[in-house]
Amino acid sequence: MAVSNEKAVVLVSGGLDSATVLAVAMERGFDCYCLAFDYGQRHRSELDASLRVSEAQGATEHKVVELDLRAIGGSALTDEAIAVPDSTSSPDGLENDIPVTYVPARNTVFLSIALGWAEVLGASDIFIGVNAVDYSGYPDCRPEYITAFETMANLATRASVEGRHFSIHTPLISLAKEAIITRGLELGVDYGLTVSCYQASPAGLACGHCDSCVIRKRGFAAVGVSDPTAYQQ
Amino acid sequence: MAVSNEKAVVLVSGGLDSATVLAVAMERGFDCYCLAFDYGQRHRSELDASLRVSEAQGATEHKVVELDLRAIGGSALTDEAIAVPDSTSSPDGLENDIPVTYVPARNTVFLSIALGWAEVLGASDIFIGVNAVDYSGYPDCRPEYITAFETMANLATRASVEGRHFSIHTPLISLAKEAIITRGLELGVDYGLTVSCYQASPAGLACGHCDSCVIRKRGFAAVGVSDPTAYQQ
Repeated sequence: MAVSNEKAVVLVSGGLDSATVLAVAMERGFDCYCLAFDYGQRHRSELDASLRVSEAQGATEHKVVELDLRAIGGSALTDEAIAVPDSTSSPDGLENDIPVTYVPARNTVFLSIALGWAEVLGASDIFIGVNAVDYSGYPDCRPEYITAFETMANLATRASVEGRHFSIHTPLISLAKEAIITRGLELGVDYGLTVSCYQASPAGLACGHCDSCVIRKRGFAAVGVSDPTAYQQ
Repeated sequence: MAVSNEKAVVLVSGGLDSATVLAVAMERGFDCYCLAFDYGQRHRSELDASLRVSEAQGATEHKVVELDLRAIGGSALTDEAIAVPDSTSSPDGLENDIPVTYVPARNTVFLSIALGWAEVLGASDIFIGVNAVDYSGYPDCRPEYITAFETMANLATRASVEGRHFSIHTPLISLAKEAIITRGLELGVDYGLTVSCYQASPAGLACGHCDSCVIRKRGFAAVGVSDPTAYQQ
């Protein structure tokens, strides 16, 4: 069911999930316009990973928008004073509540800017790698949130008034991490290019013990293939 | 029905409508946290006006977030290559279609960041000066859009998962410009501090013939008071 010559905006953070989503969008035949955000995240090396992933998969364009969410704060990812939790020390390896790595309204802000860019490009399709199975419990990764965003998006723009229908595609939303990795490997994703860690070093080396590292490790272990992630020390 | 010690985020652009909305929020007793955006708009003098308005009305804080929407383009307000239309030359003084001054997804982006800041502040209330009567036809000023945004917002955040309900207040949405100005004057708004013009000079002098100037002029004429706006030449 490949389409052709249709544009899609793909949110590409540089992590495992978004790299897989880009591969899904490319397989469907979209011309992919990748969007990344320099938002003051402590794991800035994901921005380098984002560009590597877009280039390796043949995206049409890769845009980095600067938006300093440190102006708002409220997250371990944007405030150096809040530590990233060590998930290897909690009983099940992950926090039960929504953790301090939650960034207030992040996906809403990112999807909003993606919507604006899609409108300018003449695109109707936006892809995002949210997942509501093996995830950190972020509210803006749940299906009901995505549905509500799509409804809002179709009232928000000149394009929608003129009849264009925007779709927010979340091909990973109901997949376990194991299934995401399996799908990505089928599509030829080079996970060695990605950075998942919330506190990766400037060179992109992962810490191995934050939520994101723990979830990723479990996923590769379940698939039974080695994770190409490079760890600190 | 004044409340006290409750925080509200108020979008303050520096124009007539948002100055009035801030006065409404202040009258209701909110501690007002004003939010403005340096988004690459050609009428940057509205940012100076925004700060003047917040200070004059006694806002608790005034924050300017930088987000360069020129990266996306698609609007006369963010792309110097697209001219702001002269509305004094069209038959009814205004364009009939959504004009080129429409900025793709602007209110969605701005409200999203306001939502994030509200969450961090512990605020449940967000005020925005959208108006669907005397306006430029922007889709993201309509009541159905605001309702959809509010629904989405209440699924988007950790705060909403934990039981906080966010309200998007649009006290001007169904008022004619005449009624907005009348209300603002009752509340003591100094409209001499505001800048409405889409292509105001760096000193804040208005052009007198863009949509926004034409709508503003008509409003003051209907009220029968003089507009303190200073015009170029």
